[in-house]
Amino acid sequence: MAEKIKVGILGATGYVGSTLLSILLGHSGVSIDFISSRSSAGKLISDEYPKFLAYSPLKLLSIEEAQMKEPNCVFSCLPHKNSAELLLPFIKKGCVVIDLAADFRLNDINIYRKYYDNNHPAPHLLKKAVYALPEIYASKIKKANIIGNPGCYPTSILLPLFPLIKNGLISTKGIIADSKSGTSGGGKGKFPHCETNEDFRAYNIGNTHRHLSEINEQLSFFAEKKSDLLFTPHLLPQKFGILSTIYCDLAKNTNENDIRMNLETFYSKKPFVKIRKELPCTNDVVGTNMCHIGLAAHSGKLIIISVIDNLIKGASGMAVQNMNIRFGFDEKEGLL
Amino acid sequence: MAEKIKVGILGATGYVGSTLLSILLGHSGVSIDFISSRSSAGKLISDEYPKFLAYSPLKLLSIEEAQMKEPNCVFSCLPHKNSAELLLPFIKKGCVVIDLAADFRLNDINIYRKYYDNNHPAPHLLKKAVYALPEIYASKIKKANIIGNPGCYPTSILLPLFPLIKNGLISTKGIIADSKSGTSGGGKGKFPHCETNEDFRAYNIGNTHRHLSEINEQLSFFAEKKSDLLFTPHLLPQKFGILSTIYCDLAKNTNENDIRMNLETFYSKKPFVKIRKELPCTNDVVGTNMCHIGLAAHSGKLIIISVIDNLIKGASGMAVQNMNIRFGFDEKEGLL
Amino acid sequence: MAEKIKVGILGATGYVGSTLLSILLGHSGVSIDFISSRSSAGKLISDEYPKFLAYSPLKLLSIEEAQMKEPNCVFSCLPHKNSAELLLPFIKKGCVVIDLAADFRLNDINIYRKYYDNNHPAPHLLKKAVYALPEIYASKIKKANIIGNPGCYPTSILLPLFPLIKNGLISTKGIIADSKSGTSGGGKGKFPHCETNEDFRAYNIGNTHRHLSEINEQLSFFAEKKSDLLFTPHLLPQKFGILSTIYCDLAKNTNENDIRMNLETFYSKKPFVKIRKELPCTNDVVGTNMCHIGLAAHSGKLIIISVIDNLIKGASGMAVQNMNIRFGFDEKEGLL
Amino acid sequence: MAEKIKVGILGATGYVGSTLLSILLGHSGVSIDFISSRSSAGKLISDEYPKFLAYSPLKLLSIEEAQMKEPNCVFSCLPHKNSAELLLPFIKKGCVVIDLAADFRLNDINIYRKYYDNNHPAPHLLKKAVYALPEIYASKIKKANIIGNPGCYPTSILLPLFPLIKNGLISTKGIIADSKSGTSGGGKGKFPHCETNEDFRAYNIGNTHRHLSEINEQLSFFAEKKSDLLFTPHLLPQKFGILSTIYCDLAKNTNENDIRMNLETFYSKKPFVKIRKELPCTNDVVGTNMCHIGLAAHSGKLIIISVIDNLIKGASGMAVQNMNIRFGFDEKEGLL
Repeated sequence: MAEKIKVGILGATGYVGSTLLSILLGHSGVSIDFISSRSSAGKLISDEYPKFLAYSPLKLLSIEEAQMKEPNCVFSCLPHKNSAELLLPFIKKGCVVIDLAADFRLNDINIYRKYYDNNHPAPHLLKKAVYALPEIYASKIKKANIIGNPGCYPTSILLPLFPLIKNGLISTKGIIADSKSGTSGGGKGKFPHCETNEDFRAYNIGNTHRHLSEINEQLSFFAEKKSDLLFTPHLLPQKFGILSTIYCDLAKNTNENDIRMNLETFYSKKPFVKIRKELPCTNDVVGTNMCHIGLAAHSGKLIIISVIDNLIKGASGMAVQNMNIRFGFDEKEGLL
Repeated sequence: MAEKIKVGILGATGYVGSTLLSILLGHSGVSIDFISSRSSAGKLISDEYPKFLAYSPLKLLSIEEAQMKEPNCVFSCLPHKNSAELLLPFIKKGCVVIDLAADFRLNDINIYRKYYDNNHPAPHLLKKAVYALPEIYASKIKKANIIGNPGCYPTSILLPLFPLIKNGLISTKGIIADSKSGTSGGGKGKFPHCETNEDFRAYNIGNTHRHLSEINEQLSFFAEKKSDLLFTPHLLPQKFGILSTIYCDLAKNTNENDIRMNLETFYSKKPFVKIRKELPCTNDVVGTNMCHIGLAAHSGKLIIISVIDNLIKGASGMAVQNMNIRFGFDEKEGLL
Repeated sequence: MAEKIKVGILGATGYVGSTLLSILLGHSGVSIDFISSRSSAGKLISDEYPKFLAYSPLKLLSIEEAQMKEPNCVFSCLPHKNSAELLLPFIKKGCVVIDLAADFRLNDINIYRKYYDNNHPAPHLLKKAVYALPEIYASKIKKANIIGNPGCYPTSILLPLFPLIKNGLISTKGIIADSKSGTSGGGKGKFPHCETNEDFRAYNIGNTHRHLSEINEQLSFFAEKKSDLLFTPHLLPQKFGILSTIYCDLAKNTNENDIRMNLETFYSKKPFVKIRKELPCTNDVVGTNMCHIGLAAHSGKLIIISVIDNLIKGASGMAVQNMNIRFGFDEKEGLL
Repeated sequence: MAEKIKVGILGATGYVGSTLLSILLGHSGVSIDFISSRSSAGKLISDEYPKFLAYSPLKLLSIEEAQMKEPNCVFSCLPHKNSAELLLPFIKKGCVVIDLAADFRLNDINIYRKYYDNNHPAPHLLKKAVYALPEIYASKIKKANIIGNPGCYPTSILLPLFPLIKNGLISTKGIIADSKSGTSGGGKGKFPHCETNEDFRAYNIGNTHRHLSEINEQLSFFAEKKSDLLFTPHLLPQKFGILSTIYCDLAKNTNENDIRMNLETFYSKKPFVKIRKELPCTNDVVGTNMCHIGLAAHSGKLIIISVIDNLIKGASGMAVQNMNIRFGFDEKEGLL
């Protein structure tokens, strides 16, 4: 077997970081160089998540200790801005970095400033970074050293739309994405059980959610014209999973079957995207790196149902898929 | 106090029927003449739902025994077709009937045949029945003897749309309703916990859900032209509540504020509809007969969030509201 | 109708306080004199809980404003210590106070000091206060001005045990209460959905839970000897309800039927306690002020299943029941 | 790598069977010879569980087709009685059989008759079968051809009790196991979401649950005297996991620390059992083959908290662990 690459995780104690660690512990091509945490340095990861008692003990380094390491690949699961800041030294050392925050997702610094923060720690690097939706940008990812892992909502929305827009099968105007996410999407400790369970709500309606920035930037690239998708996120009373219901206008002389065949052809060699005859549900993909897509057309409208596990295909699993692509592993290694 | 009216319930052991009974037991103007059940005749309602041990014992009659009664008002919570069949004798006796099934909701028998069943037990009565959305049709309900209680999804969709369409503030074309319902909407015993909890799914996409029949018939009446709303229902991993996210095109020179003011004015005297500044969630209305509405506009599109309790405002509570209107009680009597 | 009494609530925005307000708003014998909140003074209660939009607007007073009021009865839903502190001025004015915290539950100040806090704001009042389990102490409650509303776990445990111990049908030694509570028991915002849903855990095992203090003090009174019940609380992934599974040794020559008859006789005139033939579940009582009790015996052991709604029979509903008893209302007024 | 063994699954479409298949698909030492189903023969397993779209397609054989196969090891996830019946031909062919039903768990045919069915299909084989709790009976399992996989509740109860009883640290009298299980324990489609979610209930109290038969038979073996543990099962509103709260009397001169050290020593080399300082919760082990144990003592009583994933350590994972032991694989192969 080839030599293993050394990997590190910044921010390993959040939901995304700990899920990423679980996946990497089952990956035959990596060894864990370090895991770090700002708030729990010095503890074992199993102190935070007793599930890790199933593995050898792993200590959480402080950020300072982590910075002394020289892994081949560093994943950051830190909040935006903080993420780029702490990745910079690793970039300088020549490590491949995979940012699961939003700092290397956008091409246009002004959009970053509008949606995230006025002060990006390294605006000059945006142009070197790759928006790493692996089914679309694998050839770029293979050569990238700064990998911006897409957001969870955008992944569920862009995967079905990309081939259809690229091939002109749907109109780029008037697309609506009505998305629903589990509570893990909000990060640790955000939603109290007694106010969240048995409840369902919309939030950030009227195109005010940050993820819109990357959705529209990417759609504009695909379509080669400005996109203005309408995006409505909702919070589900469940822990994991995103389901996006997407509405768009069929192009002239296009029918449901054309759409289905186009998607099936485009994704025929992609292991993690399945076009389904039945309607997929979140349960079909939670725990996996899969995106399942179902669809129907009616009176010129196309309705797409797209489901992913928000923490896996929408974050940590996709990050490992990107690492696999970048380091020449089998794309499926370590992933279901 | 005026004399109490006598009421009966056909099909009292389902989720809707038992919720209706709870409400009627707290209503100061009625006495329970009978409750009946096809499958549990002879039992006490508390045998089926021990919550009713809080009240005096109530025995479930067989359908035959129920047919001998002469209440002032009969509610049917039976399945469609069966419902009209068993209501017919009560209609003949001169009772006011409130059908919570679909048998008296539609005006056009052909639409009933297409969406429900080829053999309606009393097609000649459709024209005598009132589609009883109380906020819209109170004046008709006051005089009706056959009251067709609207479906749960349609209630959540029609309440916000009616004034806006009536007043020309939105386009009648291209409306999309993306609705999400709790599992009680499927009736007793339908969804296994282990396959439903922590799961979210769409179903009947591409305008194949029965409720579309009444939505489009009503919208066509409001708009005075044929409507073709696109409707996508989803199943939430929670017991109660519907949230509908509705997308429509603003009419020219109309903005979010116009919409808000129009809705506030229209509903200012209606106790059960509130136009909210914040986004409502299902938890805000579950257990009540309220419909809360929130909204936002973006680039010519209007996004409406409408929430109800599917078993109360979407069924049993609205039925009692209709009874209150029909028999001259305070519209809020017995209801929250 | 008799004149209404004026009531006030200190701490109306927690889970217990807001549930109490709902009940009082439906009570025909009271008018709301004030509701107050330390953190949300000046807001409407409907800003915090939009469910209250179903009622006339009610403003939350600051504690200072509340102190100027002179209601007939004040309920405190504040945390312990703070509760007695802010109730003291009302006690001095001659108001009847009902404390839903722990400050007036214990007879022995040393037990309070051990389990709660070294500094009770009014230790001299403990002897004037009544431990207000209404099914047991109604005659004292009728005359009390300081009413210490029992804790939720103790209510579910003491109701079945009291008659059995009083009548010598079970041994007072070796009783075990294995109790399970919904997440509302922890108060607002305590348990994150993503770490609580689909999880079940024990906590405070080995007799370290505060509620043990009142359980054992009361059992010692009943039994006329020192009690050392073993208590294990658990947290359920549901919002409401407590189920206590209680194990005890049958007294000699006692069988299941004796136990059942004894409980049925004792509670025959008590509207809120039902001895069931089937096993009760939390769903049977959530939303009501009922306690349902089921039981079985095996080889000299008695197993009791006792269920209540922790926020209603275990807190706010019982407080209203106590108010009803104290002010001469029907015990059931306002309660299900 | 050594040659792979061929394995088959009878009854692959239930919750246990499909979980077992997932584990076996990730096991490096086996190839799937067949999967079968009585009700879904001819379909793909991914038709039943779309999660399996992540793997190569696998067709479900009929029982007849399965019977023609000659795997090295057959797992049965069929209902009891049916299970032994359909395993018999495989036993005759010399396959190793692992029965996840109850047909080979009991030593005494009369106990089987009392708790399960009067007609065991192969009573003469009971004495050849091994009760396959792998932490206790590994040396027997290594040589067994008929492996009776323990029940889920018994696994959670026997693992902590075995060393303590064997070493005389607790009394064998008066043990109480108060167990709580997720809804997957009831099998497919059993509990309706709308009546199960947000509800908690006890069932089969008073020692009437079938699993008691193997618990007491095993405890009697350990203790070398008749055992009469008291067992109370409960149903949690969650999908996966069992937590057993076990109460027993400490032997004289024994304290919490002795208990802890004894368990730690006994399980120090067992990869799937962890003695925890903190209290374990179901979430710590769901998705793994681990049993976590926490404990506390108080006044001569020992309280043990034991948690497992009912479908994994309580069924399919333990079955693979038993296969690993029987066929000389690393005990942890394929398992977390």
